[in-house]
Amino acid sequence: MSDVRIIPVPCAREFAEGDDLGAFLSEAVAAAGGLQAGDVVVVTQKAVSKCEGRLRRLDDVRPSELALRHATTAGADARVIELALQEACRVVRMSGGVLITQTHHGFVCANSGVDQSNVPPGYALLLPADPDRSAAELRAAFHQHTGIAPVVIVSDSFGRAWRIGQTDVAIGIAGAAPLIDYRGHTDRFGRELRATMLAVADELAGAAELVTRKTDGAPAAIVRGYALPDGPGGIASLLRPPSEDLFL
Amino acid sequence: MSDVRIIPVPCAREFAEGDDLGAFLSEAVAAAGGLQAGDVVVVTQKAVSKCEGRLRRLDDVRPSELALRHATTAGADARVIELALQEACRVVRMSGGVLITQTHHGFVCANSGVDQSNVPPGYALLLPADPDRSAAELRAAFHQHTGIAPVVIVSDSFGRAWRIGQTDVAIGIAGAAPLIDYRGHTDRFGRELRATMLAVADELAGAAELVTRKTDGAPAAIVRGYALPDGPGGIASLLRPPSEDLFL
Repeated sequence: MSDVRIIPVPCAREFAEGDDLGAFLSEAVAAAGGLQAGDVVVVTQKAVSKCEGRLRRLDDVRPSELALRHATTAGADARVIELALQEACRVVRMSGGVLITQTHHGFVCANSGVDQSNVPPGYALLLPADPDRSAAELRAAFHQHTGIAPVVIVSDSFGRAWRIGQTDVAIGIAGAAPLIDYRGHTDRFGRELRATMLAVADELAGAAELVTRKTDGAPAAIVRGYALPDGPGGIASLLRPPSEDLFL
Repeated sequence: MSDVRIIPVPCAREFAEGDDLGAFLSEAVAAAGGLQAGDVVVVTQKAVSKCEGRLRRLDDVRPSELALRHATTAGADARVIELALQEACRVVRMSGGVLITQTHHGFVCANSGVDQSNVPPGYALLLPADPDRSAAELRAAFHQHTGIAPVVIVSDSFGRAWRIGQTDVAIGIAGAAPLIDYRGHTDRFGRELRATMLAVADELAGAAELVTRKTDGAPAAIVRGYALPDGPGGIASLLRPPSEDLFL
């Protein structure tokens, strides 16, 4: 039984479209002491989205009637709501100033993850188009630049139903499975564990937030000492299919 | 910017009613290298509940008609469902084999947190009656035995709506506030952060799970290098009041 360490990876750069995030983070990781075999690197969605050109200029967005009406209730910018609706494949709740959608990736979250914090004025930032692909590309870049291919998790801050406050969760993963499935294992009394699946990628993303959020300068963190389950990667196994949605 | 360390606190004892958990954990913490000022100690609910006598013998439970019917659909033990209903103040969903309730503490979770894993055969374990009080008592015990009063979080594994798999969250806290409130702060572009509250106690609980769950022998973990916000403690500020429940 050994410690797990969460190591911040500071990088002061304000990322922009076309930046080679893998190269910048490989440099930042080296400055933070370098990667080791078995490391997990958690990269914040904001850095990924900015490099992938997911900033949208609000003056280019023409809000629909639906967006305008909701924005009035919510006291929000109708153009941001319009972007959120465009990123959605399903509206889960749209009332009382709150817009909760399912995004085309399958995430259920507020405003389809469209965000204006730490974004230049007059712009909003969308989630990466395919965060699993982003994670896989970053993993390949780390391998190329450092010789080590860590597990890569892309993280974002999501709310949790019935609770106040957000926590960081995984929205993309490469190099390991995001979930530990204890079904069929037995407990210390020999009883079969019935339904224990642990979303460890979400716990890793949340742990990384403890060091990335408290300063603006850390777009990533290394988690050292924790072995995720082998697997093909991909976030899909963490997402409950709409057919099983209890909260329609 | 510095590392955060998650240090397992192994303790092989099978806890039972009346055990002085604070004394046992103080000893275990000393064996794990001792506490330092500013440490957070995350203690799993299971250890707390067992010491507080929250085991219930299933043969003593007479299931109601409601519990019997749901248990048949769910393929569950009707006596466990009965205990879950007794621990609930509100049924959120009771269909398709799933029982999601709000407990008398205010938590929304499956089966009111009543659990049979790692519990002796023929028994089920309830959540602590007052996890904030449990956390405060453990904090006082650590202070008495070690001279240091860490922040104490009591954790349990909860599901997350729309996602597969559980993550550990905080169900009780003493010595600090569970939430960082960034409202009114500005981002790097000088824009006011509108609604960013971070449930850092949940992230700490999840981080601790990375070292407590993978072996049976660690009922607690020390998180070192993370300063929670000052505050009176208490989990209530993490719980969304039923009047704001969007998913009734």
